[in-house]
Amino acid sequence: MPAKPKIVIVGSLAYDNVATPYAARKNALGGSVSYACAAASFFSPCGMVAVAGTDFAAGSIRKLRKFGIDLRGLQTAKGKTFRWSGVYEKDFNSRRTLWTKLNVFQSFLPELPRDYRRAPFLFLANIAPALQAHVLEQVSRPEFVMADTMDLWINTARADLLKLIRKVDLLLLNDSEAMLLSGERHLVAAARRIMKLGPRHLVIKKGEHGSMLFSGKEMFILPAFPLQSVIDPTGAGDSFAGGLIGHLAAQGKTSPAALRRAMVHGTVTASFACEDFSIDRLSSIRRASIKKRVGEFLKIVKT
Amino acid sequence: MPAKPKIVIVGSLAYDNVATPYAARKNALGGSVSYACAAASFFSPCGMVAVAGTDFAAGSIRKLRKFGIDLRGLQTAKGKTFRWSGVYEKDFNSRRTLWTKLNVFQSFLPELPRDYRRAPFLFLANIAPALQAHVLEQVSRPEFVMADTMDLWINTARADLLKLIRKVDLLLLNDSEAMLLSGERHLVAAARRIMKLGPRHLVIKKGEHGSMLFSGKEMFILPAFPLQSVIDPTGAGDSFAGGLIGHLAAQGKTSPAALRRAMVHGTVTASFACEDFSIDRLSSIRRASIKKRVGEFLKIVKT
Repeated sequence: MPAKPKIVIVGSLAYDNVATPYAARKNALGGSVSYACAAASFFSPCGMVAVAGTDFAAGSIRKLRKFGIDLRGLQTAKGKTFRWSGVYEKDFNSRRTLWTKLNVFQSFLPELPRDYRRAPFLFLANIAPALQAHVLEQVSRPEFVMADTMDLWINTARADLLKLIRKVDLLLLNDSEAMLLSGERHLVAAARRIMKLGPRHLVIKKGEHGSMLFSGKEMFILPAFPLQSVIDPTGAGDSFAGGLIGHLAAQGKTSPAALRRAMVHGTVTASFACEDFSIDRLSSIRRASIKKRVGEFLKIVKT
Repeated sequence: MPAKPKIVIVGSLAYDNVATPYAARKNALGGSVSYACAAASFFSPCGMVAVAGTDFAAGSIRKLRKFGIDLRGLQTAKGKTFRWSGVYEKDFNSRRTLWTKLNVFQSFLPELPRDYRRAPFLFLANIAPALQAHVLEQVSRPEFVMADTMDLWINTARADLLKLIRKVDLLLLNDSEAMLLSGERHLVAAARRIMKLGPRHLVIKKGEHGSMLFSGKEMFILPAFPLQSVIDPTGAGDSFAGGLIGHLAAQGKTSPAALRRAMVHGTVTASFACEDFSIDRLSSIRRASIKKRVGEFLKIVKT
């Protein structure tokens, strides 16, 4: 029987059809929770909360287990697994969703196994804010709660989202979401406004341009790891988030300095995720591969 | 009589009509050489090589002199000063040139005063590569030569440009120019290819996303300074370059570590330039203002 997970992550589990300017992949194991759990598992024991359809392949389960992910929180529901199809435009600068089939995700009600309910670190990856809140309620006194969201919820479930944001330690947004949520056009101004909504920390993800951390009056800016070539950036943000919370949990500290180190590890973990489709590249590396690249990265950003 | 300048900068001197989504300014003193000399002058004595028309205002001369810029290399030619008009689209993400009037710039042949010819630091800001080469020939054994260029010369004077690049210590390009020159879509791959053209160092400017330095196999990535609001980004790249070479000259070293420090100072100087039209914000600050912001910036990027 697995040990109690130190981190619990809830999010979407999916099969993706992805096309980039150079290649394409069908039925790639994806979803925020796959990338985030895979990334986090390099640093700390991690439990998944998600729903799969009856079509979910045994091979996919094996892939996830290989990371040591605790799958006791993975429900199987009658129907098909959530599916997403997207295409990247030239230079990966913009992504277009072709279609989304919610399938079993439509009636997902996340329930946490007993062993998950005292996890000190909780990552509410991108799902409806009401479901994120439902998960949060099931964990007793978590030490650190991180939440992601998306434009859809900012537009359609703003009240739920604002309620949730007040309860999280770290809110994760990408640059366009930060502008949408705040109504500000400059990221620094956007961040100042979002911080007033209640999160202790805010991380803004800027894709290939890196990320920014806001903690009280303090700010931290980190570039992305400079890859020579990118195969598929899908899941980079979720891998960043997973690596971040995984490394935080491993440090057992959530100070601004610990957050900076965790962002470095999240950035490097995400860079590996971009080097192949699905979680394939993450499957082929070890903690030592991350450690080595972190060393290179720290030299690259040293002033 | 001014001391011999430690840095000589050649480039365009202009009056600009600039419109941003929030404000506009006509007849703003601009051009690469104004911004670069103003920025460099905070750190080291700097001599300008440029051409003005007979319409060049005494007030503009006073503005430049206030920085302590040596203007003995500024020619006055019969006709009007170079003029440029541009407009920034929403969020300053793209700039469109409305018109350019070369005027006296059309027949500009840069001639260096005797006192400039032994300057150890030379910045060939954006003008035709043949003119950059003409200036380079007049300086005897410079210690460090930096050159900028633009898409126009990459497209129309490629042979001249490639000849020049082989002779410079540091080539300065923005991201789209690096892709255009190399034919590569990823900046790291583009940089590897450009390094083979001969420059000892390459700096790629990414605007609000910062800059990258390539020196041999070494790489350095620096974010931009996070401004809460931008008034006019015109001249930011030239201010960055001027601050960079100014600080290098002040250090008297051109090692990769010295280059990193110089890029930090260039970045901070450029951030001030964006806080008003023309060189107005640079006119209102002192070296101590830059030093203070450098301190803040180093805290922001510390891993």
